[in-house]
Amino acid sequence: MSISLQSAEAVVAGARATGRTRGFQPLTVVVLDSGGNVVAAQREDGASNKRFEIAFGKAFGAVSLGSDSRALMVRAEEQPYFIAAATSAIGGSLIPVPGGVLIRDAQGTVVGAVGISGDSSDNDETAAFAGIEAAGLHTTR
Amino acid sequence: MSISLQSAEAVVAGARATGRTRGFQPLTVVVLDSGGNVVAAQREDGASNKRFEIAFGKAFGAVSLGSDSRALMVRAEEQPYFIAAATSAIGGSLIPVPGGVLIRDAQGTVVGAVGISGDSSDNDETAAFAGIEAAGLHTTR
Amino acid sequence: MSISLQSAEAVVAGARATGRTRGFQPLTVVVLDSGGNVVAAQREDGASNKRFEIAFGKAFGAVSLGSDSRALMVRAEEQPYFIAAATSAIGGSLIPVPGGVLIRDAQGTVVGAVGISGDSSDNDETAAFAGIEAAGLHTTR
Amino acid sequence: MSISLQSAEAVVAGARATGRTRGFQPLTVVVLDSGGNVVAAQREDGASNKRFEIAFGKAFGAVSLGSDSRALMVRAEEQPYFIAAATSAIGGSLIPVPGGVLIRDAQGTVVGAVGISGDSSDNDETAAFAGIEAAGLHTTR
Repeated sequence: MSISLQSAEAVVAGARATGRTRGFQPLTVVVLDSGGNVVAAQREDGASNKRFEIAFGKAFGAVSLGSDSRALMVRAEEQPYFIAAATSAIGGSLIPVPGGVLIRDAQGTVVGAVGISGDSSDNDETAAFAGIEAAGLHTTR
Repeated sequence: MSISLQSAEAVVAGARATGRTRGFQPLTVVVLDSGGNVVAAQREDGASNKRFEIAFGKAFGAVSLGSDSRALMVRAEEQPYFIAAATSAIGGSLIPVPGGVLIRDAQGTVVGAVGISGDSSDNDETAAFAGIEAAGLHTTR
Repeated sequence: MSISLQSAEAVVAGARATGRTRGFQPLTVVVLDSGGNVVAAQREDGASNKRFEIAFGKAFGAVSLGSDSRALMVRAEEQPYFIAAATSAIGGSLIPVPGGVLIRDAQGTVVGAVGISGDSSDNDETAAFAGIEAAGLHTTR
Repeated sequence: MSISLQSAEAVVAGARATGRTRGFQPLTVVVLDSGGNVVAAQREDGASNKRFEIAFGKAFGAVSLGSDSRALMVRAEEQPYFIAAATSAIGGSLIPVPGGVLIRDAQGTVVGAVGISGDSSDNDETAAFAGIEAAGLHTTR
């Protein structure tokens, strides 16, 4: 099963609520289905122009390669040429910093991914985990 | 001024409500700001994979060239080479069929655009006009 | 649910068996999952170099826009500028001639798509339908 | 001579059998002919979406530049700008980590290449060598 629009909107709402509670900079939140296709997106007022593309790239890298974008950052530190090559091979959208998180169902199956951009990468990721939890869905942790 | 996220979400909600009332196929709705950047998007369950890209292309063509995508279709009928060339020149996303509509404020200034894909192009456009009206915003008409 | 590798291989085998029985030219068969990602592919000896790309484009167009590639050909005849624009918008792979067929489960849900290239488009499509049937899966018909 | 589909399928089967025996993560295996064109591919259930593209890039880099992708990794470590430039120059698909292996006949002539992705790069390469050997073909070693 892939994530429904209703669940995707719940992830977005949960992530944004966390951003507001924690005083984060304006966030952009993108949710993809298990095939890597856009389901929902919101860019908060004041976020810069291309935040959708950055958030998309975090989520798309995660669901394309099957790991949270934080793990892709580790790989980028170790083998920058691999991440550069993979980015090109998968079509150009892969942002290897925290904030892209796989969304799983109760059985652990990947049903999609969320990508967030706007504050520090660590805070973006915090909002992503919070959004998934608020929607009653699960992460790899 | 560019469209706020709150207004963009109202356009999406209004368009989707019209789709449901009218019995349209599952719709994908994308709202761009006056700079052509994504503000909000929702893809209804059952819509095919790349509906975001099609809806985006309708809205992006509209706000890039300053006219609803229906007018771009007329141009495509008359001068297909112009639309083909413009599509390439602006980066690949310009879908010249109805369903992409400029969003204006009360003074007539363009504040963004909405693109919709999923049913016939005419119905997509009907939902777009309805969404803008539901949000208290204005069109070129 | 998306198509399994075992089912995808059954589609490929069924399509190729039909090609051999019917005396078709060497076929290339590509099966994508519901998200548009490659699951299985085989290019028969004697098929020309880029048959994978053609077969992929038939299947990718189908699963991206939610209709068999024959319907996309009808659209291309009516509105060539739409198909040209959609091809660009979805990333370059959309071959609007018969031979790309949606694969559905018993409930009618799209679980993937098969694309075939090598003989006439009509024969390619015949092999596609036969492959899906041989695998115990369903089409839109 | 270029690799036949029958031999390519034997490489895929041999590589997958090794993966299952050794307990590797789900593998994606792509076999290219001597011209760098796809002959066969299989993505095992549970492999992430873009594994075809990664496996293809390992094999394509190998057959494009005439050396196993492990050697391209050495080059990437020494001269990352060369690999980045070559990747762009050949069209975007060159993954310079182990798992892409040239396939040779008994006389040492290159007849194709196999690329594998899914487990560690070292394990991917182990499966590649095993697949080639299982098919009665040869490597550069």
